Amino acid sequence: MKTLSTLLFLFVCSLTLFAQPKTVVFQTDFGLKDGAVSAMKGVAMGVNPNLKLFDLTHEIPAYNIWEAAYRLEQTAPYWPKGTVFVSVVDPGVGTERKSVVLKTKSGHYFVGPDNGSFTLIAESLGIQEVHEIDEALNRRRNSQSSYTFHGRDVYAYTAARLAAGVITLAQVGNRLPNEVVKIPFQKPVLEGKAIVGNIPILDVQYGNIWTNISADLFKKLNIAAGQKVKITVWQNEKLIFEGKMPFANTFGEVPEGQPMAYLNSLMNLSFALNMGDFSTKYSVKSGPEWKVRVEK
Amino acid sequence: MKTLSTLLFLFVCSLTLFAQPKTVVFQTDFGLKDGAVSAMKGVAMGVNPNLKLFDLTHEIPAYNIWEAAYRLEQTAPYWPKGTVFVSVVDPGVGTERKSVVLKTKSGHYFVGPDNGSFTLIAESLGIQEVHEIDEALNRRRNSQSSYTFHGRDVYAYTAARLAAGVITLAQVGNRLPNEVVKIPFQKPVLEGKAIVGNIPILDVQYGNIWTNISADLFKKLNIAAGQKVKITVWQNEKLIFEGKMPFANTFGEVPEGQPMAYLNSLMNLSFALNMGDFSTKYSVKSGPEWKVRVEK
Amino acid sequence: MKTLSTLLFLFVCSLTLFAQPKTVVFQTDFGLKDGAVSAMKGVAMGVNPNLKLFDLTHEIPAYNIWEAAYRLEQTAPYWPKGTVFVSVVDPGVGTERKSVVLKTKSGHYFVGPDNGSFTLIAESLGIQEVHEIDEALNRRRNSQSSYTFHGRDVYAYTAARLAAGVITLAQVGNRLPNEVVKIPFQKPVLEGKAIVGNIPILDVQYGNIWTNISADLFKKLNIAAGQKVKITVWQNEKLIFEGKMPFANTFGEVPEGQPMAYLNSLMNLSFALNMGDFSTKYSVKSGPEWKVRVEK
Repeated sequence: MKTLSTLLFLFVCSLTLFAQPKTVVFQTDFGLKDGAVSAMKGVAMGVNPNLKLFDLTHEIPAYNIWEAAYRLEQTAPYWPKGTVFVSVVDPGVGTERKSVVLKTKSGHYFVGPDNGSFTLIAESLGIQEVHEIDEALNRRRNSQSSYTFHGRDVYAYTAARLAAGVITLAQVGNRLPNEVVKIPFQKPVLEGKAIVGNIPILDVQYGNIWTNISADLFKKLNIAAGQKVKITVWQNEKLIFEGKMPFANTFGEVPEGQPMAYLNSLMNLSFALNMGDFSTKYSVKSGPEWKVRVEK
Repeated sequence: MKTLSTLLFLFVCSLTLFAQPKTVVFQTDFGLKDGAVSAMKGVAMGVNPNLKLFDLTHEIPAYNIWEAAYRLEQTAPYWPKGTVFVSVVDPGVGTERKSVVLKTKSGHYFVGPDNGSFTLIAESLGIQEVHEIDEALNRRRNSQSSYTFHGRDVYAYTAARLAAGVITLAQVGNRLPNEVVKIPFQKPVLEGKAIVGNIPILDVQYGNIWTNISADLFKKLNIAAGQKVKITVWQNEKLIFEGKMPFANTFGEVPEGQPMAYLNSLMNLSFALNMGDFSTKYSVKSGPEWKVRVEK
Repeated sequence: MKTLSTLLFLFVCSLTLFAQPKTVVFQTDFGLKDGAVSAMKGVAMGVNPNLKLFDLTHEIPAYNIWEAAYRLEQTAPYWPKGTVFVSVVDPGVGTERKSVVLKTKSGHYFVGPDNGSFTLIAESLGIQEVHEIDEALNRRRNSQSSYTFHGRDVYAYTAARLAAGVITLAQVGNRLPNEVVKIPFQKPVLEGKAIVGNIPILDVQYGNIWTNISADLFKKLNIAAGQKVKITVWQNEKLIFEGKMPFANTFGEVPEGQPMAYLNSLMNLSFALNMGDFSTKYSVKSGPEWKVRVEK
C-alpha cells in the first residue's frame, strides 16, 4: 500500500511537472533586427521553460501607441482565454507613466505601460481588473541598475511569472480603479443619412483602408452589394479623398486597379483597389486624427 | 486491485493528455506588420494548446502564387512526416477556387486554396489524397458572417484540427481526384548539347539566381569544376542575359564581384556574383515565364 | 507486485518521454523571405519534436560577422544555462574555416563557423570548451552531396542533437584549444581624462549609437546626470562627429530632436536624439573600425 501511495504521489508530481502553463504573446516596436525581442523571450524561458511564446508583431512603427492599441484589439479575441499579452510601445519609458496588468472580462491579460496602448481592448473586451506592477517585487533579479529596458526586466518577466502561475494577479501589485489611459478618436455614429467614423489602421501589406464602421451600423444605410457608396476622408480638418465606388462582396467583383468598398475580416467597412494600393495612390493613412464619412 | 486499475486509468489519461500532437507550419503573403498571422496562430492554440506552430515565411510577395509553390517545395521535405502546412496566398479569395487538403506520398499535409500553390510539391512529393474542405463542418464557430479571412477561419482552423487529431483526413470533406491546379513552366530537359530550364526563384537575400536544373542533369554536359559555362536567360521571348562564367564548387574560388555558376543547397544549378547581387546587376528575376539555356 | 513493477516502468518511461529537452536559438543573415530558416527548424524538429526553437534574429546584414558577434553577446546572457545557439553568418562557407561548438563558462553553447562570430561572447562569458564538429558523424543523413548549406545540414542538425541529448559535447568532435578566431577592435580604456572605446552596434530601430564603454568605466569621468559630455567619433582615422550633449537618465529629460548621452539596457554609454535618429543625421555607423572618445 505504501508503494501504491508513493506511486500515486509520483504520478501527481508528473502531472504537475507537465501541467500546461499558459501562453505569452509579445508585441513591440523593436523590430526583429537586434536581440531585444529575443532577450525578452530568454527571460521568459528562464521563468518557466514550458511557457509557450508567440509574437503578435514587432513592426509597430516606432512610438506609435495608437497602432499598438489597434493590433491588440485586432488579434487578442482569437487567442484562448488566459493568454497573456505583453505590449511594449513606450515613448515615455523612464517618465511617470504607470506599468500595469489589465485583465479583461474575456479572461485575457495585458501587460505593459498604461499610455493609451490599451484604449481599444479595454472598450471592446471590457475591464475586469487593473493592477499596477510593483517593481520592487516584479523585476528580474539584478536588473535594478538598468534604467531603460522595462520590456525585458519588468514586462516580459511579470508576464511570464503570471502565465506560469508563479504569481497571481493580486501579487502583481496594488489594484487600481477599473480604467486605463485612453486616446480620443471619432467613434462610429449615424448622422442623418451618413455614417461618420475613424480609420484606425491600414491593411499595410496591401494598402487597404480599414474603418471602425461595423457591418451592423453600415446596414442602416441600406446599400446593397453592387450599389455605389460615397466616401469622404479627412485628416484632422483637411479633405484628403472624395469618391464613389461599388460595395462588393469579394475582390473578384471589380476590375483590377478599381476601387471598391467591402467588409474586412473584422466585419468592418473598408476600401481598397482590387490588386492595387489605395493608401499610396490617394495618400490616405490612419490614426486617431483620421475621419471618414460614408453615404449613398 | 481497484486502486491499481484506477491508477492505470489515470496513467493512460496522462499519456493521452501529453501525447505529441503534430506540427503546423504557416506560409502567407500577409507580412508580419499586422495581427493576421498572430490571429491564425491564436485560433490554432484554441484548438489544442499542445500544437507546435512554426513559420515558413510570411514575406511571399503579395498574390505571388508561384513563389508560394516554390517555398513549399524548397522547405517541406526537411520537416518530419505528419507536419501540416498552411499556405495562404490567395488572390482569388471569395471567388470559386476550391479549398483543399493535399496529402503527399511523403506523409506531409498541405492546407489552402487550390490555385496553383501546390504545383511543385504535388510533382516532387507525389499526391496521396486530395480532399475538399467542407466549410459547413470545418470552419471556426461564429465566423460564417466573415467574408474574406479564410486563412484564419477555415485554413488555420482545419490544419490545427487535423494536426491535433480532432478530425481525420476523411473528415476534412469529400475526396477529390488525385490532382491539383498547376501553373505551366519550362521543365528541365537536355536539348542536343544544351539544357533548358526555368528560374523558379531567386535567393532573394543575396540576389543569386536559382534554376530548376538538377546536378544530375547538369552532369550530362560534362563541365568540370573550373571550366566555363555559357548561360542565356529569357523572360518570355525577350533575351535578358547572355554570358560565360566558371563553374565553381565554392564562393571562395572566384574574385569578389565576379560571376560564377554553382550547385545550390537544393543541388540545382545556380548563378551568383561572389559577394554581390547578380539579380539587380543584370535584371534577371524569376517566375514561370523565365527560361534559361546552359551549354559549354 | 508484477503489475506494480510494470506500472512503475511505464511511469518512468512516460517521464522520459516528456523530459524537457533544451532550447535552440537561431541567428542567421538569411532573412525571412525564403525557406532557409524554416528548413533548419524542420531538421531540428526531425531530431526531436520536443525541442523548443526560437530566433535571435535573421536580419544580420549579409556577411556581417561583427554584427553576428554583437547580437550573440547582447542576447545570450538572458537565456537559461544550457540553451544552444546556432549562428550562421558565413561568407567563407566552403572555404577552410572550422565548424565548432563553443561551450562558455556560463553554460551556454554556440554552434557555427569559427570566423569571428564568437569574438565577443568568448570574452564576456568565458571559454569552457571548444570542439570541432566532425562532419563524418554530425551531418544530416544523405546531405553529403550538398556543397553549401552547412546551416541546415551541419549546424542546425548538430545543435538539435546536442540540445536533445542525442550526443554529448565530447561526441561533437575533437576538442580544440580554448580559443576562437577574434576580430580586433578598440577596447574601452581610460586615457588620462578621457575614455576611448568602440561603437559595436547601433540600436537600429531608433538610430541610437551604442558604445562598449560600461557604466562603471564611465563613472571614472565623474560626470553627473544633467552635466555635459564631449563626444568625438572616428571611422578608422577619419573624424565623423564632434559635439557636446547632456548625460541624462531618461529620454524625457531632453527636448524632442536634441542629442543626449545615456546608459542603455546593457548599461553601456550610448548617444541618441530624443524621438529622432542620431545615426542618420550624423552618419555615424558601427563596426570594429569605429572609435569613440568621451570626455568632460
